This record gives sequence, structure tokens and C-alpha cells, in this order.
Amino acid sequence: MDIAQLSDRILNADRRALARAITLVESARPDHRAQADDLLSRLAKSDRQALRIGLSGTPGVGKSTFIEAFGMMLIGQGLRVAVLAVDPSSARSGGSILGDKTRMERLSRERAAFIRPSPSQSHLGGVARRTRDAVALCEAAGFDVVLIETVGVGQSETVVSELSDLFLLLLAPAGGDELQGVKRGIMEIADMILINKADGDLKATATRTCADYAGALRLLRKRPQDPDGFPKALTVSAIEAAGLETAWAEVQALAGWRRENGFWDQNRAQQAQYWFSEEVRQALLARLQTSWAKSRMTELSKKVAEGAQTPQEAARDLLTGLGVADLDPSRVG
Amino acid sequence: MDIAQLSDRILNADRRALARAITLVESARPDHRAQADDLLSRLAKSDRQALRIGLSGTPGVGKSTFIEAFGMMLIGQGLRVAVLAVDPSSARSGGSILGDKTRMERLSRERAAFIRPSPSQSHLGGVARRTRDAVALCEAAGFDVVLIETVGVGQSETVVSELSDLFLLLLAPAGGDELQGVKRGIMEIADMILINKADGDLKATATRTCADYAGALRLLRKRPQDPDGFPKALTVSAIEAAGLETAWAEVQALAGWRRENGFWDQNRAQQAQYWFSEEVRQALLARLQTSWAKSRMTELSKKVAEGAQTPQEAARDLLTGLGVADLDPSRVG
Repeated sequence: MDIAQLSDRILNADRRALARAITLVESARPDHRAQADDLLSRLAKSDRQALRIGLSGTPGVGKSTFIEAFGMMLIGQGLRVAVLAVDPSSARSGGSILGDKTRMERLSRERAAFIRPSPSQSHLGGVARRTRDAVALCEAAGFDVVLIETVGVGQSETVVSELSDLFLLLLAPAGGDELQGVKRGIMEIADMILINKADGDLKATATRTCADYAGALRLLRKRPQDPDGFPKALTVSAIEAAGLETAWAEVQALAGWRRENGFWDQNRAQQAQYWFSEEVRQALLARLQTSWAKSRMTELSKKVAEGAQTPQEAARDLLTGLGVADLDPSRVG
Repeated sequence: MDIAQLSDRILNADRRALARAITLVESARPDHRAQADDLLSRLAKSDRQALRIGLSGTPGVGKSTFIEAFGMMLIGQGLRVAVLAVDPSSARSGGSILGDKTRMERLSRERAAFIRPSPSQSHLGGVARRTRDAVALCEAAGFDVVLIETVGVGQSETVVSELSDLFLLLLAPAGGDELQGVKRGIMEIADMILINKADGDLKATATRTCADYAGALRLLRKRPQDPDGFPKALTVSAIEAAGLETAWAEVQALAGWRRENGFWDQNRAQQAQYWFSEEVRQALLARLQTSWAKSRMTELSKKVAEGAQTPQEAARDLLTGLGVADLDPSRVG
């Protein structure tokens, strides 16, 4: 593949080239990896920035319907929208989110939209890296908004928040008892909570739920990167396409405020540092993923379970094999 | 230091030798580390096993008072008791738990007791490893019970559960609303919940809280390693030394059942494998803790924040310096 040509086509917003490039960054082959790195370095020079929006929500909250309605609204305003997903469970389940585009039938037919399912990797580190690369490719291809969806399995929200400029949490109308269902960690990263299904019979419940969350958000400590009134709770109806413009206006207000006050650049700089550090960690731990290391670990692990070796002794044996035994585990620094 | 001699003295239950050996395993010096490994390998042959009890509880629950009362009761039955702590925050706070022995004044004066504060390390990996070594030393010194206390910061309960044969959670009497304060994860590892302060004015509340938790525990899925009726909730009063014999009888019943049904050995074997794997991970990540790696990371991190390098490029630079650039981060296996 001619990387210079691929790079040019992406910069010219060619969706087929973009799809091909994402396939390239998702590949496990070393030669593909070298090409991917070359491509990403070239595209990094373009300096294009999209608004990256992280989105999480519990199953059944109507996430696909929301993304479709929100995406169509943005396209109606002349914007180009990419939708990516982070789902570390997709390798096991065969692709639980965005597995087929029929979930967002209208959006997927739009020329100004680009939808990509989660890379199917068994570990979050792999999914995270590939998604990060895909975000960079979408930005270079000139998308105005990149929506990064997550299923909220394990640490996936943390990963998405490290990829996003702001984070939306989509919730369903619910009674007070169900409020506890939201993980505490995610309340802390959410910039806005949207209560979906504020329509028909559920409208009143949605309004009440929204007030409950607005109250809960006021109890949280105000973060420096938030202007007054944020984080915020709003009601929306994806089915009736109601409240979406308001939500978008709030997103823009928040993004604009952060840009003006330096938090946007600061956040992106911190994220780049986070990924640098993760990249290094993953590279070191990848030493344990070679077939030699895996089979040796299995052997040694058996000995440890039988009590034939202490964990330390077995670790030393393995590390000698890996050529890193000279360094003292966890005692350094 | 003569390691053979130190080993003999520990096997002869010499408390001063034990204290000295723990200081040795806590040392960061490479020559100390080599001596510590030698000592641990020698002592591993003794095959002595203590009953390792993990203990967690929220601040203000009366954990020190409980440990003192529980420890004194065990000593009254002719048992020898060691108390260790896992507190990754102690490096910052200057030793928040077990920082001084005045917390357990009576117990610390007993010849059959041994109390050791948490090693002061900034990262949990370091604290965990040193505590694991200290547990092994206490076992070799012939202690019957090793209590491993944790403050419940971050992942410290997980670490303690990987060091324990069974896990106790100490809670204070509380109204129904406060039940949610317990982390879900810890409910899943607790073998027994003890509601402390079941005395005076709080007795009725303690009984009610106990019933609430007993109900909550019944809702959790039964684990194969639990006989009927476990996990269990009981009331105790550390101040009045009430309910402690009952709690101890339940601990013994559970431990005995697990021994007879193979879960005791299975658990210890799995823990050894867990520590083997952790040891290897920590050793690899220790490559980032050398002064060269730290200063290079700081330089590169600055470039990444400024946008002068992508996270990938910076990672590759660092990995080349570490001599591991040939391995492909997160793409292997």
C-alpha cells in the first residue's frame, strides 16, 4: 500500500481511504504496524481537530437511537460526524456494539457520517490503542464531531474519557431507588447527563429523574475545568428528536468555554501524556505475550501452584529467560 | 548479616529476628534484596502455615480496638498472633495505620503478639510485595494467626484478599441509607461481616444493621468455596469483648470446611500463581523506575504535551533507549 497516497486521500475526506486506514491500524501484523505508524506520523502534521465526544449509557437506554438522532441533527447543521466504539467485550460476544450498521440505519446512509464498530480485541489496552488511532484518522479526514461510544464494561469509560474532549452520560428515566445503579466513577467524569426517553408516558418520570441527577451533580465538587452550571443534567427524546439542539448548544458552550480558558489544550496535552505512558507500559507487558513467554509462564505457574517453586523463584526464572532479571522487581526507585 | 543464622532464629520464634527480617525484605537495596530472597527460599522449606485473616473496615468503625480485643482473646486461648497492615497511603500520610503501637497498647505488650506497621511505599505493588514477604516470615516464625489489616484505599482490599485465607469486613451500626456506602467489590470478597459497637445505645441499631447485611449477603450468588450459611453477618462489641469467641468459632468452622473440601489448598495455589504473575509484571514495569528512564520519560512527556511528538513516536524513542523497541506494543499475541 502506498502510504503517501493513502494519507492524501484521507486528508481529502475520502471515506473509503479512511475505512482502509482504520483496518490498517487495527492489524496485528508488524509490517502493517510500521505502515500505520508512518501514516499516523504524516497525518499528525495536519493539525485538524474534531470535537471528540465520549458517550456512555446503560443497556436499554436507547444509545443507538440517540446517536442516530443526534448525528442526523448535526448533519442537518452541515457538520460531518464519525461514530466509533470502545467495547472490550466485543471479541468474546462477537461484537456487541455497532456490530452491524442496521442499528443506525439512517445515519449510516449519510455521506457526511462515518460509522465504525469496535475493534475486536480481547484486552482493553488493544481496543484503546486502535480506537485512539481511529480518532486521529477521523480528525485528519476532517470530521467535525467524533462520537466515541462505550458500553461501560470495566475500565472502558476511563479509556473513552482519555480520548474525549467532553463526556456525555445517557440515562433512562427511573425511580429514586435506581439512582444508585450509576457507578460513582462515571458521575465524576460526566460533563453532562442526558435523561433519554423524555416522551409519552415516561416524560414526567424523565423530568423527575433529571431533577434528581441535577441535585446529585450539585453535591459533587466543582472541577476547575467546568464553568458555572456544569456538569449539567438535561432531558432528551431521541425518538422525538427533542432536546437535541439544546444538548448540542450546551456541548458547544462548554467546549467554547474550555477553549477560551485553556482547559481544552491542557486536557489534550494531558491525554497525549497519558497515552505515551500507556504505550510504554503496554510495550513492556507485551514481552509476556510472545509464545515463548506464554508457554514458559504456564510451566512455571504450574510449579508455583504445586509449591515446587516460590512465586519469586519462578519470576526470576522467567525474567532471566526474558533477559531482564538484572532489574529488581518493585524495589527500584 | 548471616542469613542462615537469621533463618534459624526465625524458625525458633525469635521476635527480634523476625522484626529484623521484615526490615530486610522492606529494604530497597539490591544487596538486601538478594539476602531477602535467600532467606525467603530457606524459610519456604519450613511448610508452616498460619491462618491468614484479612480485615477491612471504614474509618471510625473501631478497627484497632477490634484487633486488640480479638488478638487478646486469641492469645488467651494459647495462640500466637501477628498483625500486619497494607496501607498504600502511608507513604504520603506518614503512616496512617499502625503508625504507632499505642493504638493497640495491651496487645503490643504481649509476648505472643507481633505488630508491624505498613511498609511506607508510594505504590501498592511495593506495599503488597513487602507485606507478602512479611506474611511468609510470620508463618515461618510459627504464628498461628496472621491478621492483615487494610484501610480500603483503592485496590488494597484486593491485594489483602490475595494474601488471606479468609476475609472479614468490620462495619459500624448504621441506618438503611448508609448501607450503600460499602463498595460492591468488598461485599464479594468478604467471608464474614462483623457489625462492631453492638453495645450500649447502639446495640439495637447494630442488630438491625446485622440483619440488613445478612439479607444483602443472601442476595449474592453462593460461591463454591462457601459452606451453607456463608458469607455470614454477626454482631460484636470490641469494647465489651462480646461476640468475639462466636466470631472466632465461625472463622474456624469456615477454615476447617475449606481445608476438608480442598478449597484451602486451591486458594493458596491460586494466590501463589497470582503473585508469580504480579512479580513478573512489576519487574517489567520496574524498567520505567530507573533514574535514566524517569528523566527520559519526563523529557519525552514534555515534548508530547507540546505536540512536538506523537505519543507513539515518544514511546518508540523511550523503548529504543530501554532496548525493547523490537517488540510491538499491544499488537503481539
